[in-house]
Amino acid sequence: MTLLDETLAAIVPSSAAALGEAEARQLQLTKPAGSLGRLEEVGNRLAAIARQCPPPVPARPLVGLFAGDHGVCAQGVSPWPQEVTVQMALNIASGGAAINAISRQVGADVWVTDVGVAAELPEHPGIRVRKVRAGTRDFTVEPAMTLDEARAALEVGIRAAGEAVDGGADILLTGEMGIGNTTPSSALISVFSGVDVPTVTGRGAGAGDEMLARKVAVIEQALVLHNPDSGDALRTLAAVGGLEHAALGGFILGAAARKVPVIIDGVIAASAACVAVGLHADARGYLISGHAGVEPGIRAAVEWLGLKPLVDLDLRLGEGTGAALALPMVQAAARVLNEMATFDSAGVAEG
Amino acid sequence: MTLLDETLAAIVPSSAAALGEAEARQLQLTKPAGSLGRLEEVGNRLAAIARQCPPPVPARPLVGLFAGDHGVCAQGVSPWPQEVTVQMALNIASGGAAINAISRQVGADVWVTDVGVAAELPEHPGIRVRKVRAGTRDFTVEPAMTLDEARAALEVGIRAAGEAVDGGADILLTGEMGIGNTTPSSALISVFSGVDVPTVTGRGAGAGDEMLARKVAVIEQALVLHNPDSGDALRTLAAVGGLEHAALGGFILGAAARKVPVIIDGVIAASAACVAVGLHADARGYLISGHAGVEPGIRAAVEWLGLKPLVDLDLRLGEGTGAALALPMVQAAARVLNEMATFDSAGVAEG
Repeated sequence: MTLLDETLAAIVPSSAAALGEAEARQLQLTKPAGSLGRLEEVGNRLAAIARQCPPPVPARPLVGLFAGDHGVCAQGVSPWPQEVTVQMALNIASGGAAINAISRQVGADVWVTDVGVAAELPEHPGIRVRKVRAGTRDFTVEPAMTLDEARAALEVGIRAAGEAVDGGADILLTGEMGIGNTTPSSALISVFSGVDVPTVTGRGAGAGDEMLARKVAVIEQALVLHNPDSGDALRTLAAVGGLEHAALGGFILGAAARKVPVIIDGVIAASAACVAVGLHADARGYLISGHAGVEPGIRAAVEWLGLKPLVDLDLRLGEGTGAALALPMVQAAARVLNEMATFDSAGVAEG
Repeated sequence: MTLLDETLAAIVPSSAAALGEAEARQLQLTKPAGSLGRLEEVGNRLAAIARQCPPPVPARPLVGLFAGDHGVCAQGVSPWPQEVTVQMALNIASGGAAINAISRQVGADVWVTDVGVAAELPEHPGIRVRKVRAGTRDFTVEPAMTLDEARAALEVGIRAAGEAVDGGADILLTGEMGIGNTTPSSALISVFSGVDVPTVTGRGAGAGDEMLARKVAVIEQALVLHNPDSGDALRTLAAVGGLEHAALGGFILGAAARKVPVIIDGVIAASAACVAVGLHADARGYLISGHAGVEPGIRAAVEWLGLKPLVDLDLRLGEGTGAALALPMVQAAARVLNEMATFDSAGVAEG
């Protein structure tokens, strides 16, 4: 049995009983019924994930950030040169990127994993080298990965989640870096959600009109070539995904198998979540959507996943920034269930 | 010269020069231009407020929470009995309310001030008693406050802001508690924004259809009776405002006079911000809108104020919860300007 198979076998639905307990408890807390809106939903989901009410307050957050490169960049789908993947991976490992500044604010650790950067990275204490291959193949010509490569990259993510949880992390956040990686994201989202390519394809980190049209054409061409079936998530991932998408999918599955919540953010994470849920539908219950963002694919993905992003700050950066910004709200949602007085205990009259 | 006059005289516009510096700096940081969306706007505003770029990262947040009662409750505008104001003020002072749970998560202190609760509160170390009067008068019959009372309540807020900043607070958040206090909020917002009463009046903490219709009628009646002029903010506040609205307005003015940013949240804070800006237009530059929320008046108020709420979690609780939930994003926005590497310093190629 492979690690992937073992992980899928370990995933069970989140607890409907604990969810019901949390919903009942919300009504006893000193606030008008439902007045904490989305925060109540998140708190209840945390109870379902932890299988207890109140759920523990997540105190050891960890951003699993996976970097990879994309053969499809040969088709001119990004205004940024591919070497920026290496440069930014080093910048993140050195603490100089947006995700680092935001993670320091919210008290999250950041693990940078090279799962598929095209170039050899210089050795750096902040980078975990788990390279499956040096970038994907150009999926307009051939599958981006073999099935074995896709499985290996999924397992990089599964192992990262397991190591993080073993090390004490109690909530995981998804992060990524990879020039060109909105293109495979839109491809994956189109396959899983069934929404057409132009609707789920956006400008990424700054594509102009012409480049956007090329992204759409490139993805449509690849979907004709590979004819991926959403019922076969592994093959779909291998055909049009990316190595960091695979690792993120594994990271999500690993979290679900360990019954730990995962906050996803942008379009890359959302597409990876589609893969994870395509591989095991019960992974869905462990997901929290942190941020909506500018990329149009996010909407189709979160709708298919049955999620509703907590915030929308018009971010289009990735790296896990939207997940990290949503984290304090998720923690606050757990605190509400743990720390608020009830009408009875506080002697407050009900409305 | 009164404290109010002194405070108004001390308010200067936030710095356009520092704003420009921050806008320029955002373009040098290792991210695609504009990719941090709303976070960049907030960071730039913090620079303008601090008159320096990068701005300091707010590290000592304080929620100024003001409690008051409302004579207009006699008209049946809330499903909650008025004694809940006392009960909830004590609950907050004891740490059992939603604002306490959320503030603990984000590291904010909470100061509870009785500026106008109708009943005598039992002595409690967590409550600052600065009562101007025991609830407002019923503004469907007479002005809610005299001009002197309104000024005194404004000065309660000004003093609280001053004491908070003297004690080390470097960012202020607005909070409130007061059964019935969405009714004066909608009245104030209608006067300042010029938007009609039905559009800016909502269900508060749970009004049904009939009660909502009564709220609208009661406010319209009061506006006919007092005919308030938005150009005379003090008289408008006295006619249809509340003691906690006045104190919050003063809190905002006090922050602006001390060049400290203030995060506002729901409809009560938004209406108080209208009063503050009505008293001094330059107070506007010190405001950050944390949360949109369910109450329809917020939209008209923030539009009139030229603000855009950072998040919308469908909250309708008040207490400052929406401001506290937005706080980490505001802090993260400052960190981005302080801590991110530039393209030059990190050796990252530009797109």
